[in-house]
Amino acid sequence: DFLGAYIRQRQEDGAFREVEPRVVVRTFIGMFVHHSLNNILWDKEQKLLKISNEDAAREFATILLEGIKK
Amino acid sequence: DFLGAYIRQRQEDGAFREVEPRVVVRTFIGMFVHHSLNNILWDKEQKLLKISNEDAAREFATILLEGIKK
Repeated sequence: DFLGAYIRQRQEDGAFREVEPRVVVRTFIGMFVHHSLNNILWDKEQKLLKISNEDAAREFATILLEGIKK
Repeated sequence: DFLGAYIRQRQEDGAFREVEPRVVVRTFIGMFVHHSLNNILWDKEQKLLKISNEDAAREFATILLEGIKK
């Protein structure tokens, strides 16, 4: 798949550490799907976590990229 | 909550970078909930990602901790 192939490429480039790309993909999707479910279903007023979609995307992406870089 | 308080404490210790603890909690829960849903609902045979629970937990935790450490 697209994301997995990208991760594999970046590992070969030496930018990302060795980790099963599919685990990374699952993490990536998990962050966003879970956050969306929170917002759409049970926390529509964002009482648990008040954050814009832009900020959420940036924070999630930063955690993930920092988490897999070398 | 418990996780958020722990993260806040570790930030004060200087171990974690500044990031909204609730974002970290959402990431943490998202990884595991999404992975569980995959395994329980639509990928029971683990065709998408074959991994033991122990390995999945270790990989997720590593990504998250590396992602928020200073």
